[in-house]
Amino acid sequence: MAFTVREATVEDTVQIAALIKELAENENLSEQVTQAEEGLIRDGFTEGPYYKSLVAEVPADQACRGHTVVGFALYFPSYGTWKGRAIYLEDLYVMKGFHDRGIGDALLQRVTEIAIQNKCSLVNFVVRNNNFPSIDFYQAKGAVDLTKSEGWHLFRLEQEQLEKLTGGKGQNVPASPSP
Amino acid sequence: MAFTVREATVEDTVQIAALIKELAENENLSEQVTQAEEGLIRDGFTEGPYYKSLVAEVPADQACRGHTVVGFALYFPSYGTWKGRAIYLEDLYVMKGFHDRGIGDALLQRVTEIAIQNKCSLVNFVVRNNNFPSIDFYQAKGAVDLTKSEGWHLFRLEQEQLEKLTGGKGQNVPASPSP
Repeated sequence: MAFTVREATVEDTVQIAALIKELAENENLSEQVTQAEEGLIRDGFTEGPYYKSLVAEVPADQACRGHTVVGFALYFPSYGTWKGRAIYLEDLYVMKGFHDRGIGDALLQRVTEIAIQNKCSLVNFVVRNNNFPSIDFYQAKGAVDLTKSEGWHLFRLEQEQLEKLTGGKGQNVPASPSP
Repeated sequence: MAFTVREATVEDTVQIAALIKELAENENLSEQVTQAEEGLIRDGFTEGPYYKSLVAEVPADQACRGHTVVGFALYFPSYGTWKGRAIYLEDLYVMKGFHDRGIGDALLQRVTEIAIQNKCSLVNFVVRNNNFPSIDFYQAKGAVDLTKSEGWHLFRLEQEQLEKLTGGKGQNVPASPSP
């Protein structure tokens, strides 16, 4: 079945936002989705961009629940002190009903092409340890689970802790480098 | 003992590179450091910047092994589809002999100030599960171990896999968005 992979435009954001919500529901973590489409548009298109995205699209007559965009990959440049430039793959998702058609393969291949073109030596990402289909997919591509092999754990400071740590000072310091 | 925290300049890179090497040796992973000072200068100052860094500096009369820069933090903007803008803290390191002086606290506080100023709701980072002093340090600040609490594992595709996945195509595709 035909599909195309292309860079996302601002018009794709409605469909990407719906897929992000669907993905969070599959993870049983939909309560963690605290931003809506407006944030994705602002951060991807009107400010920044803070991320880049690719979509996989099928012809209109094959749409599912109004979706012609049936998959997406969202990534941004990252950096490692040991190996330099890298890509962080934040999300790669294909709707149920469109698996086993090579759409995930095509999205990941395009991300790896972009990595190589931009002199990135690594693509990093996180997967939950109960998400066996994704783990199988990535391991078949040669990905290594660094949490298992080297013991790396992902940590996070949330907004509440950030505010406590700065004692509100974050709001007042005048000279700030953009990150 | 007096120290100052400030944004790093290109002249600090020699000392930062030495601290990066020291940190990798402490992790027994120094074979993974495949880039030298030149890469850090290019990616932080002459191209990009792909990262930002802060240094903690002591007066010259308190230098240790030629180091007045006795600590650093290196970070870059990251993005989450669920919560939007974030900071990824790639490294935060303070030389042995300079611990227990609040230098790590001051570096982390400055990173969190920068996060808040840039409308980032999260600071993400990874720590090895045998690095108990660092885990204690971050957990005392309120950081959550998402690998433990939600099962997130860090995965990586290395250069060799990227080249296999693209079949060399990464070199030849003419139109490429910068990540």
